[in-house]
Amino acid sequence: MTGTLLANDNKIIFLVFDGLGDIPNPDRASMTPLEAARKPNMDRLAVKRGSLGRTIPVGTGITPGSGPGHLSLFGYDPLQFEIGRGILEVLGLDMDIGPKDIAARGNFATVRDGIVVDRRAGRVETEVTKRLCEKMSKEIPEVDGVSVHIKPGVSHRFGIIFRGEGLSDEMEDADPHKEQMPFVWAAPSSPSAQATARVVNAFMKRAQEVLKTEGAANAVLLRGFSKRPDIPPFPERYRMAALAIATYPMYRGLAKVLGMSVEKVPRSYEEMVTVLKEHYGGYQFFFMHVKETDVAGEDGNFDEKTKAIEAFDRVLPDICALGPKVLVVTGDHSTPCPLKGHSWHPVPLLVASMTGETDGLPFYEKNCLKGSLGTIYAKELMTLALAYGSKLDKYGA
Amino acid sequence: MTGTLLANDNKIIFLVFDGLGDIPNPDRASMTPLEAARKPNMDRLAVKRGSLGRTIPVGTGITPGSGPGHLSLFGYDPLQFEIGRGILEVLGLDMDIGPKDIAARGNFATVRDGIVVDRRAGRVETEVTKRLCEKMSKEIPEVDGVSVHIKPGVSHRFGIIFRGEGLSDEMEDADPHKEQMPFVWAAPSSPSAQATARVVNAFMKRAQEVLKTEGAANAVLLRGFSKRPDIPPFPERYRMAALAIATYPMYRGLAKVLGMSVEKVPRSYEEMVTVLKEHYGGYQFFFMHVKETDVAGEDGNFDEKTKAIEAFDRVLPDICALGPKVLVVTGDHSTPCPLKGHSWHPVPLLVASMTGETDGLPFYEKNCLKGSLGTIYAKELMTLALAYGSKLDKYGA
Repeated sequence: MTGTLLANDNKIIFLVFDGLGDIPNPDRASMTPLEAARKPNMDRLAVKRGSLGRTIPVGTGITPGSGPGHLSLFGYDPLQFEIGRGILEVLGLDMDIGPKDIAARGNFATVRDGIVVDRRAGRVETEVTKRLCEKMSKEIPEVDGVSVHIKPGVSHRFGIIFRGEGLSDEMEDADPHKEQMPFVWAAPSSPSAQATARVVNAFMKRAQEVLKTEGAANAVLLRGFSKRPDIPPFPERYRMAALAIATYPMYRGLAKVLGMSVEKVPRSYEEMVTVLKEHYGGYQFFFMHVKETDVAGEDGNFDEKTKAIEAFDRVLPDICALGPKVLVVTGDHSTPCPLKGHSWHPVPLLVASMTGETDGLPFYEKNCLKGSLGTIYAKELMTLALAYGSKLDKYGA
Repeated sequence: MTGTLLANDNKIIFLVFDGLGDIPNPDRASMTPLEAARKPNMDRLAVKRGSLGRTIPVGTGITPGSGPGHLSLFGYDPLQFEIGRGILEVLGLDMDIGPKDIAARGNFATVRDGIVVDRRAGRVETEVTKRLCEKMSKEIPEVDGVSVHIKPGVSHRFGIIFRGEGLSDEMEDADPHKEQMPFVWAAPSSPSAQATARVVNAFMKRAQEVLKTEGAANAVLLRGFSKRPDIPPFPERYRMAALAIATYPMYRGLAKVLGMSVEKVPRSYEEMVTVLKEHYGGYQFFFMHVKETDVAGEDGNFDEKTKAIEAFDRVLPDICALGPKVLVVTGDHSTPCPLKGHSWHPVPLLVASMTGETDGLPFYEKNCLKGSLGTIYAKELMTLALAYGSKLDKYGA
């Protein structure tokens, strides 16, 4: 950090609505869900104590995945720190990943005469995938002293972790990416990965033997080999004990990778607040993650996205009642309903505190454009939050 | 610079109100001093010839000290160029500092049995500090061929300069920073500072002998060892002869370090303008520094901050009458009254010229947010001023 960090017990809460940002919806009077939502509590907070602005998660025109979207929110340059596909996959399956482990995304596939004829084995059913994963786990618990950990996902998908000494993730995908192409083995992209490639290929060979009586699902493809990124832990970086309150495994996993604590899985927004209250004394930083806005955005479902915001608004007063020094409300990226997917659009930002410029405006995209925080890179947000939280000493004499 | 600098006699004036920026004051109808001030001249200038914007002195969320705040205004990256604590202290005491000198901030302190029991020697009175500094100056004019220069400050404070060949500032503070801790000697943080540490420690030992009959003030603590930074001189960098018109020693010293000329100390805003008029023909760049806005901000005194702006507004027409090509009105950082200290908030900026976009808005924070200059890093301001001053040729063919 530029400037000395002060360790104090001031509380900072990041309330992250996944995919919050939206664009004018032509069939809804050009409004956005954030604009249409009846959210009296959030708007009162914004008008009375809020500074508005917008964040750019990665760069102008860049649509972020969940990894870069969150890394930047927590002040890590998403171009410097990368979270691999395999890591995200196993985090999403709630698997624990150690610093030396190699993670990969797996597919059950159909291979005939050395040709990958179906990369998804006819989209084999989840129940079958479960059974096949169990079978592989039992038959191939380890390869050459490297233990193998497999967890089924949805349909043909599974996550896999190789755990041992001296493994490298510098490997090309063991997946031709297209059908009717020859089956490919894992190939090292650097000499240091030769031993790892041998282990992975021994596993894939054994898997084919185990699966040979299973019909369509007679082989596995692996891709996105990756290690847990070497990221400076959040608590040391910011001198704050940090707690993540999230329902979805991927975000809980991401938080763990950053060294945040993760409490039990809340089953509702009310329970999220209960967890917050229970642990409020023990931490200084709280990351609360709301997934439903993104899911609705991906579905192009304006009403559901609006409802998720309204539903959370009802529990907001209980959060404010705790009197955090700083409450940040934002998203990790935009997921506009008209686009049905993540997008590059700047993300609305509300910073509520007693030391802000109080723009006096309700919280939605068009007002955020006028706000005093301006449009900043998401990776700058943590510094701003620390400033508002009186946790950052001045720079220079 | 990107683009070729043109040497011409066009005049650029930087009128810097220290700590100018503020945030809505809840007990003043959410206004800021700049908004509340009756400043018809400044507002007429802004409306008729002004472009508005905001500057970020160091970075989003970063609260600057006076050193970085001014360096960035003059186009020096404050993260690249650093001005040490000792240098700022001796500059503030109007001491001359040479390129090989080491400066430090000194405290009179009480040491008993090797323990620092009072880092401020009971906040010894300024008159006593004067006498003690005279005594030390007389008794210890030099140590091992290194001359020692001491000047009293307020209360227990003094500035000290070590002048000699081959001195290094890579030294840890000779100050435990806390009381009831053992006295610490200067320690080199790099091998090249070993000889300097010996000189400093010999001085500190001699000081204890000289002070042993002085009761509470029986030792000195030294911190912030620093050299004058190696900064490219302003006049060569921008091809402009530069004059600083400032009352407070620290800012006069800062200007000197940058190679600006410094004229006699003005005793009022009227005298500042008189000095400007007298020397208008001899320079192209003028730095006028108004300290009172910052002092009032630090005191949380809304009325005084407002009054300082209003008082300067009355002399503004005399400055405008000189017809400078560019008149910049801004601050080195914000010092919001509600926060009673420097802050990270963007700083209001007015550039008045005949070549601007003339936003047609009076000059205060909320309008600056809407201004055509946008929110820029303060270190970019000099380039902008050079452009408005027709001193910067186009970049590329």
